[in-house]
Amino acid sequence: MSRFFSEKYKNLTPYTPGEQPRDMKYIKLNTNESPYLPSEDAIEMAAQAARSLQLYPDPECHELHEKLASLYKVDKSMVLAGNGSDEILNFAFMAFCDKEHPARFPDITYGFYTVFAEINGIPYSELPLNEDFTINISDYTNKNETVFIANPNAPTGIALSLEEIELIVKSNPDAVVVIDEAYVDFGAESAVPLTKKYDNLLVVQTFSKSRSMAGARLGVAVGNAALIADLNTIKYSTNPYNINRMTMAAGIGTLCDEEYTQKNCASIIENREYATERMKKMGFEMTPSLANFIFAKHKKIGGEALYQALRERGILVRHFSKKRLEDYNRITVGSREQMEILCDRLEEILEEKK
Amino acid sequence: MSRFFSEKYKNLTPYTPGEQPRDMKYIKLNTNESPYLPSEDAIEMAAQAARSLQLYPDPECHELHEKLASLYKVDKSMVLAGNGSDEILNFAFMAFCDKEHPARFPDITYGFYTVFAEINGIPYSELPLNEDFTINISDYTNKNETVFIANPNAPTGIALSLEEIELIVKSNPDAVVVIDEAYVDFGAESAVPLTKKYDNLLVVQTFSKSRSMAGARLGVAVGNAALIADLNTIKYSTNPYNINRMTMAAGIGTLCDEEYTQKNCASIIENREYATERMKKMGFEMTPSLANFIFAKHKKIGGEALYQALRERGILVRHFSKKRLEDYNRITVGSREQMEILCDRLEEILEEKK
Repeated sequence: MSRFFSEKYKNLTPYTPGEQPRDMKYIKLNTNESPYLPSEDAIEMAAQAARSLQLYPDPECHELHEKLASLYKVDKSMVLAGNGSDEILNFAFMAFCDKEHPARFPDITYGFYTVFAEINGIPYSELPLNEDFTINISDYTNKNETVFIANPNAPTGIALSLEEIELIVKSNPDAVVVIDEAYVDFGAESAVPLTKKYDNLLVVQTFSKSRSMAGARLGVAVGNAALIADLNTIKYSTNPYNINRMTMAAGIGTLCDEEYTQKNCASIIENREYATERMKKMGFEMTPSLANFIFAKHKKIGGEALYQALRERGILVRHFSKKRLEDYNRITVGSREQMEILCDRLEEILEEKK
Repeated sequence: MSRFFSEKYKNLTPYTPGEQPRDMKYIKLNTNESPYLPSEDAIEMAAQAARSLQLYPDPECHELHEKLASLYKVDKSMVLAGNGSDEILNFAFMAFCDKEHPARFPDITYGFYTVFAEINGIPYSELPLNEDFTINISDYTNKNETVFIANPNAPTGIALSLEEIELIVKSNPDAVVVIDEAYVDFGAESAVPLTKKYDNLLVVQTFSKSRSMAGARLGVAVGNAALIADLNTIKYSTNPYNINRMTMAAGIGTLCDEEYTQKNCASIIENREYATERMKKMGFEMTPSLANFIFAKHKKIGGEALYQALRERGILVRHFSKKRLEDYNRITVGSREQMEILCDRLEEILEEKK
C-alpha cells in the first residue's frame, strides 16, 4: 500500500479469483468454465473484428443489445451489456445501494458481494443459510433493502423457484431485487419474464458459463428501462467504451447459434448427473446442484485434503476456507471424459483412505 | 432515472463520447482514432485468442505486463494494464483522491476528469488555462493536491516539457501527480523515466491512439510499485478479469512490432505538419499541437458552423460547446489522403464565405 492510498479503501479485502495456472497440465475444474469451445460464429466474428481495432467500439452496443432483447423477448431499452457480470453487479451496488438502502444477501454466496459493498461504502447484512444450505425466504421478504440473490446460489448450486423469487420481488416494492443468474442455464428457471411485470427487479446473466465466453468478458443486465438507464449513467460516468469490438462481435456471434448453446447446456447437465451418480456411490454428500458445478464432501476426507489429493493427481477444484464450507469442494462440471477421470481419481483417493 | 437511483448520483452528468456513426459514409476525424490498421501480429494473436474464449483470461496479465515492463524499461511491479485508460484514470481518482485530497486539473482538458471526480464524490478545482491555452505551472506547484494533467493536453495538443512535469512532481511530495499521456507518442516527451525517481508520479498511457487499438480497450499505468499495488486493490475489488483474452493477446502482439508503431507515429506527425501548413495558408489559427489532432479556428466561420459544413461534406470533426472552445474544432490527424480531402473541403467552405 502506498502512503497516498485513500483512507476509505485501506481496510479493503479484494476478491480472490480462482487459480489460473499458466501451464496447461491440469484438468481445470476450479473456475466453472465451460469445457466446450465458443461457437464457430463467435470465433469467426471476433477474429473479423480484430481487423478494425483502430476504431472505437460502439458505446451503445446497438447490434448486441438488439440481439439480447430478442433473446430475452424484451424491449431493447431493458438490456445492458457489461464487461463481465462483475462490472454489472458493481454498477448495481453503486446505483441501488447506499447508507439509506443497505444490501442484503446470504452469508454463503458469490464472495464478491461483500467486496462490492465494502468498496462502495454500503452497509450490508449477510443472512445465514439454513443448515441444508437453502435460503430462508422470510429473510428477504418485506425488508425493503436491496437484495442480491445468486440463483442458483454459489457454491451450492441450489436454486429458488420462480414463485419464491416473485414473492421476494413483490414484497419489496420499494427496493431493488437483483437476481444473479450466472448459472441459470443448467436447469434453474430464469426470472427474466418477471422484469416486464416488476419495476424493481434486475436480472444479471453472463456469457462466461453456458456460452463458453469467460475469456471474452460479457455480462448482461435485464430489467425495467429506468433501472437500465441508471446503470447507463454509471457506465457513462466510469467507462463508456467498456465493451471492446471483439467481445461485442463474439457476443453477437454466439447469439446467432442458440442451438449450440442449448446442446452444450444439455451435455453439462448430463455430465453433472453422471458424476453425481458415481460420487453418490462413493459416499459423497452433495447439495442438489442445478449449476455447472458439484458441491461435495466426504466423511472420510477433509475438504482441504481432498483438494490437495486431486491437485497432486492433476485435477484442480476449488476449496473455500470459510468455516461452513471447509469440508466441501466445488467441482466444475466438465466434459464427459473429464468427469470420468475425476471419478476414477476420487475412487483412488478414497481407496487409499481405507 | 428510476425511483431507486441512489441520491449520491442523481445530479451526475455522464461523459459524452464523440459520435460513432454506424454507417461508414464519413471520413471520421472526430475521436482521435488511428487511420492505420492494428499490427498484423495484434490481429493474428487476437484471432488466435478467440479460439480459447471458454477459459478466463489471466487476471494478473503476466505476459502483457512483462512486455510492458520491457517497453518502459521498468520493473514488472511498476505497470498495470486496464480496460482502456479511462478505467485506469477512474481507479486513480478512487485510490488517490478523497475529501482530504482534492483533485486539481485545468479547466480545459479531457472532459472526463470532472465526471470521475463527481462520481467518486471528490472535491476538485479546475484551474483556468492561460489565454493562449498553455498551463500555468504555478497553479500546480507546492499544492499537495492530487494533480491530473493530460500531456499533451486535449483538445489543444499543447505539451509541457519534461522539466516542467518534474517541477510539478517534485514540489508536491505528499500528493500523487497523474500524467495522462494518451497523446504522448506524436512528439511530446514521456514522464515514464521519472517514475523510477519519484514515488508520487503515475503515468497513464493508452493503446488507442499510436497503437491503433481503440477498439480493443487497453490502457496502462506506470508508477512506483506501491501506487500500482493500490490500483490493483481497486481492480481486484471491482473487476479482476477486466482485460479479456483477445485484448490481452492483441496488446502482446502490438508490442512485438514496435517498428510498425513508430512508423505510424512518424506518418501522423508528417500528416499533421502537412495539414497545419495548408490550413495556415487558409488563415486558420491553430494551437501548437504535439498530438494526433489539430485544434483550429478561423475568423471567417464559427466553430459550430464549420463543424456542420464539414459534416455536410462527409467529414466528421469534434466541436465542443464550452465557452472558451466554441470557436474551435478538434480535427483528428488521419492518413495523408484524408488530410488532403479535409484541406480541399476547408478551402471550398472558406471560398463560399468570401
